[in-house]
Amino acid sequence: MDLEEIRNEVKKAVEKARETCPLVPSITNTVTINLVANAQLASGGSAAMVYLPDEGEGIGAICQAFYINMGTLLPVYAETLPRTARALQAHHKPWVLDPVGIGLGGLRTVLLKEFRETTPTIVRGNASEIIGLANLWGLDAGIKKEGGRGVDSVDTVDSAIPAAKSLASFIHGAVAVSGEKDIVTDGNRVIRSFGGSILFTKVTGSGCSLGGVTAVYAAVSEPLIGALTAVNMYNAAGKRAAEKAKGPGTFEKYFLDEMYTISAEDVAGNPMEMVEE
Amino acid sequence: MDLEEIRNEVKKAVEKARETCPLVPSITNTVTINLVANAQLASGGSAAMVYLPDEGEGIGAICQAFYINMGTLLPVYAETLPRTARALQAHHKPWVLDPVGIGLGGLRTVLLKEFRETTPTIVRGNASEIIGLANLWGLDAGIKKEGGRGVDSVDTVDSAIPAAKSLASFIHGAVAVSGEKDIVTDGNRVIRSFGGSILFTKVTGSGCSLGGVTAVYAAVSEPLIGALTAVNMYNAAGKRAAEKAKGPGTFEKYFLDEMYTISAEDVAGNPMEMVEE
Amino acid sequence: MDLEEIRNEVKKAVEKARETCPLVPSITNTVTINLVANAQLASGGSAAMVYLPDEGEGIGAICQAFYINMGTLLPVYAETLPRTARALQAHHKPWVLDPVGIGLGGLRTVLLKEFRETTPTIVRGNASEIIGLANLWGLDAGIKKEGGRGVDSVDTVDSAIPAAKSLASFIHGAVAVSGEKDIVTDGNRVIRSFGGSILFTKVTGSGCSLGGVTAVYAAVSEPLIGALTAVNMYNAAGKRAAEKAKGPGTFEKYFLDEMYTISAEDVAGNPMEMVEE
Repeated sequence: MDLEEIRNEVKKAVEKARETCPLVPSITNTVTINLVANAQLASGGSAAMVYLPDEGEGIGAICQAFYINMGTLLPVYAETLPRTARALQAHHKPWVLDPVGIGLGGLRTVLLKEFRETTPTIVRGNASEIIGLANLWGLDAGIKKEGGRGVDSVDTVDSAIPAAKSLASFIHGAVAVSGEKDIVTDGNRVIRSFGGSILFTKVTGSGCSLGGVTAVYAAVSEPLIGALTAVNMYNAAGKRAAEKAKGPGTFEKYFLDEMYTISAEDVAGNPMEMVEE
Repeated sequence: MDLEEIRNEVKKAVEKARETCPLVPSITNTVTINLVANAQLASGGSAAMVYLPDEGEGIGAICQAFYINMGTLLPVYAETLPRTARALQAHHKPWVLDPVGIGLGGLRTVLLKEFRETTPTIVRGNASEIIGLANLWGLDAGIKKEGGRGVDSVDTVDSAIPAAKSLASFIHGAVAVSGEKDIVTDGNRVIRSFGGSILFTKVTGSGCSLGGVTAVYAAVSEPLIGALTAVNMYNAAGKRAAEKAKGPGTFEKYFLDEMYTISAEDVAGNPMEMVEE
Repeated sequence: MDLEEIRNEVKKAVEKARETCPLVPSITNTVTINLVANAQLASGGSAAMVYLPDEGEGIGAICQAFYINMGTLLPVYAETLPRTARALQAHHKPWVLDPVGIGLGGLRTVLLKEFRETTPTIVRGNASEIIGLANLWGLDAGIKKEGGRGVDSVDTVDSAIPAAKSLASFIHGAVAVSGEKDIVTDGNRVIRSFGGSILFTKVTGSGCSLGGVTAVYAAVSEPLIGALTAVNMYNAAGKRAAEKAKGPGTFEKYFLDEMYTISAEDVAGNPMEMVEE
């Protein structure tokens, strides 16, 4: 696919999510769970969040795609996440992993290691998280690092490209790295998407909700297109929202408005470049 | 009561909530807990959320009304919900049940079955949830169904009228069914309230927060009036908010503004019709 | 320090938080956790929320300051809070305690009693909470009371001044009492900060997020200045937001915008008076 064909697929993904309203449940952190759900609704999906093992399994079996975000782990996650991941694998459901906070605490490390066997379809994170996960799984990351600082990245997007490619190849899916200039890769192609706003860094859950919306598009398209559609949506709608916003408070709300109203053409037409093909 | 008398009672409920600031705690899901609290505050109530069994019991004993929402169950709910419901029953406190996600997972089914003995004063839900609860409790629902799709309804409001009437009669209280054209019933009378906005379906927690606000009005009026006041408030304030909003992000904020500033007369005067009397 | 010197320190705290982006994790309630994080980001800090014991310890050891809020306790808090507080003490990290809901439930009382040994650097609360905590710790509070009504205060700020001074002296730190006219004290000096808006009482988490932002400034200044900078920020930015807002919905968003954009000079110049020195 060249960029023109990719744009056409992105456009179809935006339209299909709006038309089919895929059911995309999440197990996600309590900090940003509301924004994840609202962003999924704004993109056209249906959100449903759970904590209990049999609920993860049950809704995992009937969903169109799933989102797992590793922030604010609770004790019950020790059982819920592995059982949900196995159900998703058994039912061949696409799912997105967001390895938030990698490196912090024992349970997070155990669970992330287990996902090496029940691999996600897409991994989304900041540069430090992507580098950390590639290292945790023993893949070639180019750098030896375990994670970031709290939930912040201490690495540049470009420095995470080798890790992102290794991860994407390993999972036979796609990886999106968020930062000043986001990239998406399927292990071979590396596509950069431009736009967005510095205000995303001042709204908690920008990344988490991008993960949730990635899962919405993963429900209606192949991994690379799903990841890229979400990143393009955030960059295009975020840029427009920032033009109206006076700060992070209004930005978050205008962003949801823009995501809900932007045309599929404008998401597909967001500035991109093929870095490697 | 004819519609004119009902409107007068609705007006009094809006005023009394604003004047007396009733304490209306909740046990509710983590996705929309913030909007539930903010909507309760905007309507004039005082919000307080808990998870632990003795906290549910303790604040249940001193509150004016209570709200229980079945979304995002945690393991501790297995003990907290029954103990809280028994405390509410023992202290004759009105409470509102929102059977979100009925049909998903083992614990939710067990807990909802137990509420058949410690009945709520008002049940609020979408059509599929109301039909599901009537069936779970072995009441005449007109249709055999266990729930919806995730948290979404797959049934129309009108198809849930028999289930709503059965439930309301059984609990000797009221039932509100949310959807395109909401209805409220006490088992005999069925009143339809018009207005609102399609944007409510794009804001997570529209229904949950309506449940929380229903509990605020249940603290200051009889069940049918409490349920109807909340539905009218949402329809009237929601319609106004939608006229200003550019999408779901700004809609949520304008809606809280409108709920806080709308006159009691305008809530009472919201378009309604008596479907059955 | 006279008020002029204090203003200069406040100005420096605002600037330093923006320049250094301190890592300020929280263990806080699920109702307002999103607003806490967004307010911390708007003030220049980095937020990270945790629930598990080893995560509290781990991030407590590497953070610049920490925020503990006692709302919506979960079972795991029985272990997480003491272990986190001990880690903060061992690593000499400043931390802010918000004794939300004091008086409700057994676990909250046990945990708050334990904090008498691993004392916070700053306590922030409404008048009833401050009076309740001073009594729980056996300090001279001037009044015998255990708490408020739900999460609301039933006491005036001025009636809590003796309790606030006792607490501040005991912890060798600072205490901030929120209400119509906030005060901050280090046990000797009592400073009143004016401004804000009645709309803060209609937005859930105004107090919680003030606690989180207090921790951000505690990371970059001494306790009295940290507490006062946060209170001044809320009063100055809140007053501006209220001039634009049409109700509590838009107020919350404008407030975050104002916090992000207000000058350090304007925060430092917020109306204050020295009540006792």
